[in-house]
Amino acid sequence: MTDITGKSLIAGTWVTPGGTEFHSFNPYTKSAFNSFTSCGGAEIETAMTAATEAYHQMRQMDGATIGEFLSTVADEVEALGDTLLETCDAETALGLIRLTGERGRTTGQLRAFAAIASRGEWVEASIDTAIPDRAPVPKPDLRRMMRGIGPVVVFGASNFPFAFSVLGGDTAAALAAGNPVIVKGHSAHPATSELFAVAIEKAIRKTGFPAGAFSLLQGANRELGTELVKHPATQAVGFTGSEGGGRALMDLAAARPQPIPVYAEMGSVNPVFLGPQTLKNTGDAIAAGLSGSVCMGTGQFCTSPGLAVMLEDTAFESAMKTAMDAAPRGHLLNPRIQASLVGGFARLESIAGVEWLNEADFEEGSMTPPNAVFKTTGDVFLQQKALSEEVFGPVTLLVVCTDENQMLEVGNSLQGNLTGSVHADDDPELAAELIQMLEQKVGRVIFNGYPTGVEVCPSQQHGGPYPSSSVSWATSVGADAIERFARFVAYQATPDHLLPPALRNDNPLGIFRKVNGDLTRDKIPGTEK
Amino acid sequence: MTDITGKSLIAGTWVTPGGTEFHSFNPYTKSAFNSFTSCGGAEIETAMTAATEAYHQMRQMDGATIGEFLSTVADEVEALGDTLLETCDAETALGLIRLTGERGRTTGQLRAFAAIASRGEWVEASIDTAIPDRAPVPKPDLRRMMRGIGPVVVFGASNFPFAFSVLGGDTAAALAAGNPVIVKGHSAHPATSELFAVAIEKAIRKTGFPAGAFSLLQGANRELGTELVKHPATQAVGFTGSEGGGRALMDLAAARPQPIPVYAEMGSVNPVFLGPQTLKNTGDAIAAGLSGSVCMGTGQFCTSPGLAVMLEDTAFESAMKTAMDAAPRGHLLNPRIQASLVGGFARLESIAGVEWLNEADFEEGSMTPPNAVFKTTGDVFLQQKALSEEVFGPVTLLVVCTDENQMLEVGNSLQGNLTGSVHADDDPELAAELIQMLEQKVGRVIFNGYPTGVEVCPSQQHGGPYPSSSVSWATSVGADAIERFARFVAYQATPDHLLPPALRNDNPLGIFRKVNGDLTRDKIPGTEK
Repeated sequence: MTDITGKSLIAGTWVTPGGTEFHSFNPYTKSAFNSFTSCGGAEIETAMTAATEAYHQMRQMDGATIGEFLSTVADEVEALGDTLLETCDAETALGLIRLTGERGRTTGQLRAFAAIASRGEWVEASIDTAIPDRAPVPKPDLRRMMRGIGPVVVFGASNFPFAFSVLGGDTAAALAAGNPVIVKGHSAHPATSELFAVAIEKAIRKTGFPAGAFSLLQGANRELGTELVKHPATQAVGFTGSEGGGRALMDLAAARPQPIPVYAEMGSVNPVFLGPQTLKNTGDAIAAGLSGSVCMGTGQFCTSPGLAVMLEDTAFESAMKTAMDAAPRGHLLNPRIQASLVGGFARLESIAGVEWLNEADFEEGSMTPPNAVFKTTGDVFLQQKALSEEVFGPVTLLVVCTDENQMLEVGNSLQGNLTGSVHADDDPELAAELIQMLEQKVGRVIFNGYPTGVEVCPSQQHGGPYPSSSVSWATSVGADAIERFARFVAYQATPDHLLPPALRNDNPLGIFRKVNGDLTRDKIPGTEK
Repeated sequence: MTDITGKSLIAGTWVTPGGTEFHSFNPYTKSAFNSFTSCGGAEIETAMTAATEAYHQMRQMDGATIGEFLSTVADEVEALGDTLLETCDAETALGLIRLTGERGRTTGQLRAFAAIASRGEWVEASIDTAIPDRAPVPKPDLRRMMRGIGPVVVFGASNFPFAFSVLGGDTAAALAAGNPVIVKGHSAHPATSELFAVAIEKAIRKTGFPAGAFSLLQGANRELGTELVKHPATQAVGFTGSEGGGRALMDLAAARPQPIPVYAEMGSVNPVFLGPQTLKNTGDAIAAGLSGSVCMGTGQFCTSPGLAVMLEDTAFESAMKTAMDAAPRGHLLNPRIQASLVGGFARLESIAGVEWLNEADFEEGSMTPPNAVFKTTGDVFLQQKALSEEVFGPVTLLVVCTDENQMLEVGNSLQGNLTGSVHADDDPELAAELIQMLEQKVGRVIFNGYPTGVEVCPSQQHGGPYPSSSVSWATSVGADAIERFARFVAYQATPDHLLPPALRNDNPLGIFRKVNGDLTRDKIPGTEK
């Protein structure tokens, strides 16, 4: 817990910016500690200028060099040892077990993107060979691949201080694609952020990587983020957080002279649909699983299941009540989330026709909220738009419908969601209809499972229709997260030695490429172009 | 040229909307003919409601059904025969030779997307198999693929009345991905648009395709486009046209309660860089090629080369002047483009340090502009931002730089472009530097060629950094144009029979899929999930 300097890392130099002072906050003790100051225009300008220069250098690197750098970053994160876990626990109350797991995920992501960068297959190389004697005009040789887009601004998330923060998935993906990253550290865990910057600074020195490839700008003011998004050198933004925050960045980016993409993952209510027959047969197991998912991490996940859509089933209701009461109370991350959860409870309680099944005290200022299960009818839900808004915390709402059609109607009434779950093994017709409905509403359909716990793998889709994400095709978890930070460049009739390795005739990377429309690892006969 | 009814096709029904009247305009005779009325709110509502319904039906179709429909559409376009060519020539003055070629490209695109839809490999299927005994938690089975996103609004382009219009590339790509399309017909060729609607209506009847899958809304008012983009059922927009028009749609889409993507291809100046030694050795050939590219189609291509960046070379200058003068004058498409070109000439002539090398008359109201070559210095170019703006017509500007560094500086000063060309076989060091610079500025780098003539193939990239396109990763030409109108959906632990065919264990489509990270056509052993 020592050695926190309160500085920001600007392109290889530790600086003490002159902006507003702010502090770490300990949710266990409700006390402030450490001292930080916020970055402003000068730090932004230095970071962005260095990032632009680093981008030019990174464009010339091969994937293996970038891969080696990312692996070294992962090593240096591990070298921070228990200090990282303890510092973060003191800032977030997430607990050492969860943070140990999240650290493993974070270094795992860094190493996965190291492997992706080294392998080089992510660029989706495609080659169409020339047909010089085609009539009426010759067909030129055309080759296409993805290239990094330039400096990427990443906003750290409060609820994942490791995996979606300074060296989280967005940073790893952006670097792997060959882009410098400028992180706006989250003000709820600045000491944790500083430690990650220490790790990457060491990796930069060890590998001789350009110092401008990474900057951490600490700050507690909204203006810092605004100015980073508006800076002309910024070419894309990664964000994980609230719908309000994400939409503000989207609007800023869209209004720039050069609009840029904002990849914002903004969370959702993650509905769970429970078939009546399935609930009758396995309701106790579902109550155990669902309550576990709702309460996990004090409900502070973007995939926390906030809605359970079902028919009347008093046995299940009672099992849910019992399970939620039995779950120990957890800690909230910070006072802002606490205030927002207090507001969420008030909203639910203010709506006629909504019942708090296991009403309990939530003392003023308490950081340990009750695990709450509410209940309403499908009719009320369909009339009250506010009920489909996310309540960030250990809260779920049972929506008891009149029949299966109303269950589908409730689903169709929802906005975009990250996930939608189905438990309907014993309701096969309903299962098929639910899946068809959910495909249009969510990024990930889950069968017989719960939405928390996002597997990091190539087939993962963590992103869904707005407002769960800003860009519905994109994922912020898994291998394809890299594609957000790249664009295609085609090369027409370009001499082999001037092409990037991925497009050269002899396929030096040995990657799959689309050659005249078909995937193959074959070389191209070295014809004169 | 007979049988033009002036109606709009709204989800299978021909209607006469009650909005403003407008007419076809013949650029050869400068006279109006035919009569059309503009669609409004009622037609929009009917079209969008039917499109939403059609979307649900199209989601359940297999790719072969969609492919068969697109092939039939291509057949019906051909069945329009010479009427299509003659009608369009009377509305655009593009000439029968060019239009015959463009018709071939258009039916070729429709058939190419038919094949893509039938094959089904475009969905980028990925499967990660379960590891039930993994510690600390089991790994779930996850499978992911692209699915259509919903109703797509397409704006026809004036300069490609076939290939980028009612049944052009955007429409073909959006339908292939399983989306209904609502076309706002371009008011400069409404009779041509009507004929295409006749063709697709026939294909819909022949194949029993949902009538809501296609609507053509004719209109000469800006409000129609605005309301289509703002309609809540619209999920994406395809546009080819001016930067002003494209940006207006981008701003509208970004301001919606649910922001949606706008894929706008807005053209650019398409710089051509000429190495000094190469110019000395092959200047005459380059002058012939460049002037041909500038004058092609009266310069009315988004890829028309508007800048040639070079060192002083009086022989080349003189060759360019001769070649441009020798090229016959062509016809402009319509009075709006004529007025814009008059403004472009005035702008170039108003800037001190810009010389019109082959000054010639451009009579008031004339639809046949001079083929113009202007000249300025690198110094003037770098100071006058207006010189890097597109002049849509048969016009190019020679930018004579002091040295090779200034050539690169001119390149670096440019905004995003669709293409950048390099002629530098005898300037090998400059060639490498130019390519590295262009990769950051353009979507397609061209070696020893000219930007007009966009090959339709999988490796094509027709789209570049803003303002040449709204979304720099996307292409509006080539196989990957389909990806703009789809998003990924993941399925977790979903029973095989409830999965789309592309993700099923036995790989019924026989497509390449990423299985646990590696591309393969193998089946998945049918394990219990």
